[in-house]
Amino acid sequence: MPEESHVDVLIVGAGPAGVMCANALTTAGIRVKIVDQRPSKVSTGQADGVQPRTIEILQSYGLADRLLKDGCQMHMSAFYNPDSDGVLRRTGRAPCVTAASARYPFAILLNQGAVEGLFIDSMTEHGLAVDRSITPASIELSDDSKQLADPFSYPVKVTLDHLDAPGTQEIVHARYVVGCDGAHSWVRKTLDITMDGEQTDFIWGVVDIIADTDFPDIRYGSAIHSESGSCLIIPREGEKVRFYIQLSDSDVKDPITGRVDKNRMSPEKLLEYAKVARKIIHPYKVHEPKLYDWWTVYIIGQRVASRYSVNERIFIAGDACHTHSPKAGQGMNASMSDTHNLAWKLVQVLRGRADISLLKTYELERRKYAQDLIEFDRKISTLFSGKPKTADNDDGVSHEEFLNAFQIYGGFITGIGVHYVSSGITSEIHQQCAPHLIIGERMPPQVFIRAADARPYEIQDMLPSDTRFKLLFFVGYVTEERVGELDALSDKLRDPSCFLQKYGYPTEGTAQSMFSIITIMSGDKENVEFTQVPELFRPHWSNVLLDDTDTTKKIGGGACTRFGIDPMTVTLVIIRPDGYVGMIAPASALEDVDSYFATFAIPRKAMLGRD
Amino acid sequence: MPEESHVDVLIVGAGPAGVMCANALTTAGIRVKIVDQRPSKVSTGQADGVQPRTIEILQSYGLADRLLKDGCQMHMSAFYNPDSDGVLRRTGRAPCVTAASARYPFAILLNQGAVEGLFIDSMTEHGLAVDRSITPASIELSDDSKQLADPFSYPVKVTLDHLDAPGTQEIVHARYVVGCDGAHSWVRKTLDITMDGEQTDFIWGVVDIIADTDFPDIRYGSAIHSESGSCLIIPREGEKVRFYIQLSDSDVKDPITGRVDKNRMSPEKLLEYAKVARKIIHPYKVHEPKLYDWWTVYIIGQRVASRYSVNERIFIAGDACHTHSPKAGQGMNASMSDTHNLAWKLVQVLRGRADISLLKTYELERRKYAQDLIEFDRKISTLFSGKPKTADNDDGVSHEEFLNAFQIYGGFITGIGVHYVSSGITSEIHQQCAPHLIIGERMPPQVFIRAADARPYEIQDMLPSDTRFKLLFFVGYVTEERVGELDALSDKLRDPSCFLQKYGYPTEGTAQSMFSIITIMSGDKENVEFTQVPELFRPHWSNVLLDDTDTTKKIGGGACTRFGIDPMTVTLVIIRPDGYVGMIAPASALEDVDSYFATFAIPRKAMLGRD
Repeated sequence: MPEESHVDVLIVGAGPAGVMCANALTTAGIRVKIVDQRPSKVSTGQADGVQPRTIEILQSYGLADRLLKDGCQMHMSAFYNPDSDGVLRRTGRAPCVTAASARYPFAILLNQGAVEGLFIDSMTEHGLAVDRSITPASIELSDDSKQLADPFSYPVKVTLDHLDAPGTQEIVHARYVVGCDGAHSWVRKTLDITMDGEQTDFIWGVVDIIADTDFPDIRYGSAIHSESGSCLIIPREGEKVRFYIQLSDSDVKDPITGRVDKNRMSPEKLLEYAKVARKIIHPYKVHEPKLYDWWTVYIIGQRVASRYSVNERIFIAGDACHTHSPKAGQGMNASMSDTHNLAWKLVQVLRGRADISLLKTYELERRKYAQDLIEFDRKISTLFSGKPKTADNDDGVSHEEFLNAFQIYGGFITGIGVHYVSSGITSEIHQQCAPHLIIGERMPPQVFIRAADARPYEIQDMLPSDTRFKLLFFVGYVTEERVGELDALSDKLRDPSCFLQKYGYPTEGTAQSMFSIITIMSGDKENVEFTQVPELFRPHWSNVLLDDTDTTKKIGGGACTRFGIDPMTVTLVIIRPDGYVGMIAPASALEDVDSYFATFAIPRKAMLGRD
Repeated sequence: MPEESHVDVLIVGAGPAGVMCANALTTAGIRVKIVDQRPSKVSTGQADGVQPRTIEILQSYGLADRLLKDGCQMHMSAFYNPDSDGVLRRTGRAPCVTAASARYPFAILLNQGAVEGLFIDSMTEHGLAVDRSITPASIELSDDSKQLADPFSYPVKVTLDHLDAPGTQEIVHARYVVGCDGAHSWVRKTLDITMDGEQTDFIWGVVDIIADTDFPDIRYGSAIHSESGSCLIIPREGEKVRFYIQLSDSDVKDPITGRVDKNRMSPEKLLEYAKVARKIIHPYKVHEPKLYDWWTVYIIGQRVASRYSVNERIFIAGDACHTHSPKAGQGMNASMSDTHNLAWKLVQVLRGRADISLLKTYELERRKYAQDLIEFDRKISTLFSGKPKTADNDDGVSHEEFLNAFQIYGGFITGIGVHYVSSGITSEIHQQCAPHLIIGERMPPQVFIRAADARPYEIQDMLPSDTRFKLLFFVGYVTEERVGELDALSDKLRDPSCFLQKYGYPTEGTAQSMFSIITIMSGDKENVEFTQVPELFRPHWSNVLLDDTDTTKKIGGGACTRFGIDPMTVTLVIIRPDGYVGMIAPASALEDVDSYFATFAIPRKAMLGRD
């Protein structure tokens, strides 16, 4: 008899999407099981670009330090094109990150295994390990509508095969399942979810090497369009660099499936590809590399899954939902952002704090993003694969055209510009209270100082991914005339009918609480006292910030002006647990905030007895 | 028979001075033994302020991360004085750090045990532990002048008692001994080194508590002068605060020695002191604290040892050399800076790279500093202990007087302004080549970007305390006309008679090498190629910097203008292994650089066969 177990969430696949999900859930106290067919984590190669918004997300989980320390930073790009004599020349350099509000104005290159390792080490601290050499054999979802409607039932039954002990199976009963099992997702196929989109004919080779070269931009991200083809060079950790080389070689394709057949690859082919690269970057030289670290070949395809879940009980995420070229370095980023979006929603539902319908916003928000992604990828891949514009080829891709595309899509490439559409958790009705703090986008970095000790703090560091909604009360200047206004607001917020009491839980101040209050005062650090605001606004002295510069006058200040917030009234900014602005409201419209939470949150009294 | 052993350096005492010394030496590959009489490290209380320059020093050893993470940061001070009605009022707030070039514009409060722990953990990684419960019983220095002149002899014989195994002794033969055994130093007394200076009559109590108070500046550093006495409040880790309270109580003094007799202290006394504190900060309230974490009582004394070494074979450092009040938070800082200054000199002598006379500069530089310190301490302590200026007391200390003193001594308090006098290792002859980069002071923080990858770097992070002299070649704009000038300089530097070859060792690029080359180009990141400088100036691509802003244009750039360096010539800036500017020279005066090194360095050929 196979062993049986019950878990809140079963995650299939321990790639970037899977480990992000597992770590977020387990640190929130959810019972998780994560399985992977690989006997050990990947140690090299694969996706390796971490974009600015993804670094912010990792920071929100406390995982950016090691990433920043170990990773290679890519700050600038260089563009090479043939000159009028057909000789390859640098046509310009430009910052890699054009999104002005990026906290980290660079991309980080770090191999996928190391990035996965950040999450795996964190999970381990919370007692969760990846169960390896395990593959799903069958998945069954109950069709009992009553069972499906109960967020605490176990409607999914998954049978797992132990690859290292043939014949051994186990059965897992899960409340929810997340399939993070990659581009050839077993979960997706088993659920008959189709992929919409197409395969293109461009073949590219990728190789990580230690290059001996006179190419001066070898530590920049270099996009090279030459008459002999296209090539992209990306710096890597230590002395390594990655070459993406466009290939015309079609004999690595399987004639029936049209896919790259790795069995048709050989070390000889790799040397042949190296020759192609040398031709492309001529007159610069690349000598025989000291080390071939990793290589692969792929055909670009842009496809998105037709749906992201079955009954909000089984989800797919990451490459299982979308396939695209690695050109813009979105691979790991899109995958981790998928489950970053899903995890807090699962936690709130599993805690009984939110209705199961909240989970519908996962597909709403992330499928829209994936469609934009493949649209962008199609354009950028075509530009990459196109011939350069020269005297003989007026239809070719010009330097300007290429650079423009990168700048137009800057917000997209970096992840900074991701904008979630209006929904139950994203209410745009009072956008005018802070016209430059965009609802549906992530809270941008902004330094405040703490009122009690004048220490500067990045607001993003006060918005950890801890499943809580952050209530940012911009109270403005607390003049004597305005004390009464704040007292009255404090009274309203203490009223049992107010959202703060209705959806707050008797666990305030702990990791399990629903809300976290941050108060932002206007004024100068020479005079403001944090004790000027009513006690409700200062659960702890560290929660009161001041919109002023630090003692060096070099950082901080000007937030109200930047966001367009009136410092003579109170403006409430609600940040979702994933760091995105969910709602903005004036103090006079608390009932709209009540309505916002009423769309998905479950009142505390309904939950009494469950806590 | 007692066990006998031979070590390069024996360190007596594992307080801040001792562990700084031990860590610096052991990471440089020196054979060290460090002993301490305490059975375990201190876990609470004691000195706890880490000043801005000390944070920079810790960062140069790679030890600042945890300090910054775990410590409490103090950014601003508040000053309280009686108003015209005698009621205590805040007369102002001001930044704690007034030194404009501080990289860390704040002090860090972290208990001494945690600071020592940074070094102890680092030492442990290098295989060195503190030998505890050990106290020196006797110390003998050879009077054989030949032996004393040989830097590799073992002229010091120290007998140690094992406190946990009474009767057990061991004998250590050491090349050098460093006594870091505190204010009542056994090493100092045994060597008959006197302390010059005096004891004052001010008695102060110190107590660490978790305070329940309505005092609004409880997380600032607050200096309170009231008619009932003086008090200093310093925020600590977590919720703790430290109160320094002026006491009139003289019955804790031993009538014979005049020292505080801890046996005369009692818990009742502590409650009495709490009453004094309450009176001083009235009308603000301090309720009975939740926790008394640590407390002590002391009498201010300002004294400096008459000498710092015997024959440059036995040294004293830290509190063994200087005693002063804790008012300006210099305790740990002065101690750690002493051995930071000494350690690299010992390493160079023990490697045979420098003459033993180099060790004389330790006393020259650090005793001068200590004399300045007690002078400053005398002034600031008197201001602290004085009565406030009021209508009835026109001779009292005014707010302005107090604030002025803090601002005048800002460079001293922070450690940023420490200036080492001219000596063999500090040559001021070419100061005019960079008039605003002060020879004898620490290299100030300045962000450059790396020419090869446009990544911003803090120059201080390229000047680790790794015992190497850093050669900063400010080469300026590398125009076509100037290529010849650089090639010629490169040729000169390759000449066997040049300092770079004469004092360089065949271990370049390793931790054992004498020099580290950093080249700083002028120009903009859109156009400069690091390959424009001759190979000598770029031993690795990461060693070439650019005096330009990063891609956000927010950090970096303007260094040549700031320092007064001409970007159309080559200026060499030599940074000593401890981060202080040792010499500046134009490329035309390489022979002066030869002379600089000739004063203390030993030519490579003299050492052949030893390496």
